[in-house]
Amino acid sequence: MRKVYIDYNASTPLKPEVKDAIIEDLEIYGNASSMHASGRLARSRIEQARASIKKLIGVKEGSVIFTSGGSEANNTVFQTMRRLVHERDEFLISSIEHPSVMNTALNLNKEGFKVTILPVDKYGKLKLDELEKKLSDKTLFVSVMAANNEIGTVQDIKEITGLVKKAGAFMHVDAVQAAGKIPVNAGDIDYLTISAHKIYGPKGVGALYVKKSSPLFPLVHGGHQEDGLRAGTYNNSGILGFGKAAEIAAIEAEKSEISILRDRLRQGLLEKIPNIKINGHPTDILPNTLNVSFPGAEGEAILLSMDMQGIEASTGSACASGSLEPSHVLLATGLEHELAHGSIRFSLGWGITESDIDYIIEMMPPIIARLRAMSTLKA
Amino acid sequence: MRKVYIDYNASTPLKPEVKDAIIEDLEIYGNASSMHASGRLARSRIEQARASIKKLIGVKEGSVIFTSGGSEANNTVFQTMRRLVHERDEFLISSIEHPSVMNTALNLNKEGFKVTILPVDKYGKLKLDELEKKLSDKTLFVSVMAANNEIGTVQDIKEITGLVKKAGAFMHVDAVQAAGKIPVNAGDIDYLTISAHKIYGPKGVGALYVKKSSPLFPLVHGGHQEDGLRAGTYNNSGILGFGKAAEIAAIEAEKSEISILRDRLRQGLLEKIPNIKINGHPTDILPNTLNVSFPGAEGEAILLSMDMQGIEASTGSACASGSLEPSHVLLATGLEHELAHGSIRFSLGWGITESDIDYIIEMMPPIIARLRAMSTLKA
Repeated sequence: MRKVYIDYNASTPLKPEVKDAIIEDLEIYGNASSMHASGRLARSRIEQARASIKKLIGVKEGSVIFTSGGSEANNTVFQTMRRLVHERDEFLISSIEHPSVMNTALNLNKEGFKVTILPVDKYGKLKLDELEKKLSDKTLFVSVMAANNEIGTVQDIKEITGLVKKAGAFMHVDAVQAAGKIPVNAGDIDYLTISAHKIYGPKGVGALYVKKSSPLFPLVHGGHQEDGLRAGTYNNSGILGFGKAAEIAAIEAEKSEISILRDRLRQGLLEKIPNIKINGHPTDILPNTLNVSFPGAEGEAILLSMDMQGIEASTGSACASGSLEPSHVLLATGLEHELAHGSIRFSLGWGITESDIDYIIEMMPPIIARLRAMSTLKA
Repeated sequence: MRKVYIDYNASTPLKPEVKDAIIEDLEIYGNASSMHASGRLARSRIEQARASIKKLIGVKEGSVIFTSGGSEANNTVFQTMRRLVHERDEFLISSIEHPSVMNTALNLNKEGFKVTILPVDKYGKLKLDELEKKLSDKTLFVSVMAANNEIGTVQDIKEITGLVKKAGAFMHVDAVQAAGKIPVNAGDIDYLTISAHKIYGPKGVGALYVKKSSPLFPLVHGGHQEDGLRAGTYNNSGILGFGKAAEIAAIEAEKSEISILRDRLRQGLLEKIPNIKINGHPTDILPNTLNVSFPGAEGEAILLSMDMQGIEASTGSACASGSLEPSHVLLATGLEHELAHGSIRFSLGWGITESDIDYIIEMMPPIIARLRAMSTLKA
């Protein structure tokens, strides 16, 4: 059976150069904290990778802390803010954040911290006037993702950061989905999260950028690694692979040929399937992401039928799978429950061909027609 | 130059089968949380690895949560206990715990939690009578490592666990250094930590065993991974390598031929270098670990001189490197500051030969003699 993986926002295959870098590093057995030649070798390789990460996010100063992924990096920031609560005690996040920001914030809220969730418009854009209204000398911290994982909408991070810094609050940006797909520049941002496996690097490694002089408290206590900011033996091979992936992404991030294939898919689906809805912003959107609602069909059933034809996509975030709730992102854009339930995210990447796209355009109409015919929902 | 790596308690090279398993897994690109064939494949491989971990620690029930390493696993347990404080509010730990337990406990203490540090005898054995004295209906939690990373002393975990459970407290065992070297059985223990890179697996992955019905709260919030107990995309290749390493360790853990080489090294050093002291327990000790004090020489200087001869060892824990303090483990056994400062840990492993040991026995005497002659310290 033909197989088309079109779920790159969930995870990406390794680029060959990344794979080679990891395999080469598997021979490096020293602990990067050890004080001998093998340790120093392991350590120097980590520092090279760190330099590549800095280059990708356009910074020369500040720190890059390696973590086990985007989720740990995001949690580290919230854990830090929790300790900084004083006369400023309000947390602001957007309503379409990734579960590792949303659930961490909601958890803090349950513990008694003040968390306000900022609304987005029908395209998933943060309402800047609402942000301005909420910002005050009580605001400690604002967390807004650079680009949304489910619908691809890109936020005006520069403008948002300007407002937040003017209000004297800390700014955090989850750039996990933006990095490698659009240019990312940490600029005035206090904290910025990225992850390797979304940019053709390995799973299980991410990084947190911390602006010079912005505070950070460890989430994981223990050894002296990362200047005491993140304990635990360095994941050498993962970090090396991340560094190589960042090096490649820094060069290729601005290429958006992938949007031609994405637009071909959108056009094809619009032409072949009646009554569908495209989610996300029409122009401020990741070049690889297409989120479509198929009224009258149920998302999990669509996914299953696609899977049987070898087409691998997603109903939303892989990190939200296992939940029966409709996507909180789509609901936040004002989509009705039924539509949110019947939505599929196509996320393209390296290796996808025009022929793959045409295969999807060919296979989707009968799937949707069959499910709509069976469904008790009204299209 | 000849090179002898004898720092296996810091980190181990990958076994060839482990390396092969990782390389094979680098081709598996699905996110284990995704609901399609690629996701299910990634997920099923993780579940196989989980079964291998359970086998290694001798459990059938309970949960195994994959983490980014031993430090995160230990922190997760302390984070859980912190939330469980009620009429029981006392934490007990031994004085020779790894930094990821010791510093995490001290950090809780700084925040106002009650932490008591239990003494060990001159061999590094926890004083059971002191433990019994401190245990009460106020004790929430006891954390004692199965085997010490610096001196190799093995604790009577079964007996300790019996006392702790009789007192109605939770028991945590950091078995990072014990696993793969001596048999480890989680038995009645509530929480048990292991790490891949100490058993010829990859760096950056560990596991926390949680007994059925023992509580656990996430350290990293976010997605639904690990039944909501640890958010973050699965580190597939790392977990696969860990599973393979555990599979091998479960078979080989009880082989202690390595102790013959360790004993040869101890005997050789005792014969060739006057006035040295062997640290750790004479019999209840890891088969691969030898910790030696060289009075009149300074540890970092010894290490540097050894490194120049291609011999790679350690002054203590890699996780404590970067600190100028003498080893808290050696101090806890009653060693004077000067002796603690002049101590070297040799930790053996797979691939070390008799000829390597003889090379070390040949190279060490002139190094120590030269440093003693230069030193202002009295031997």
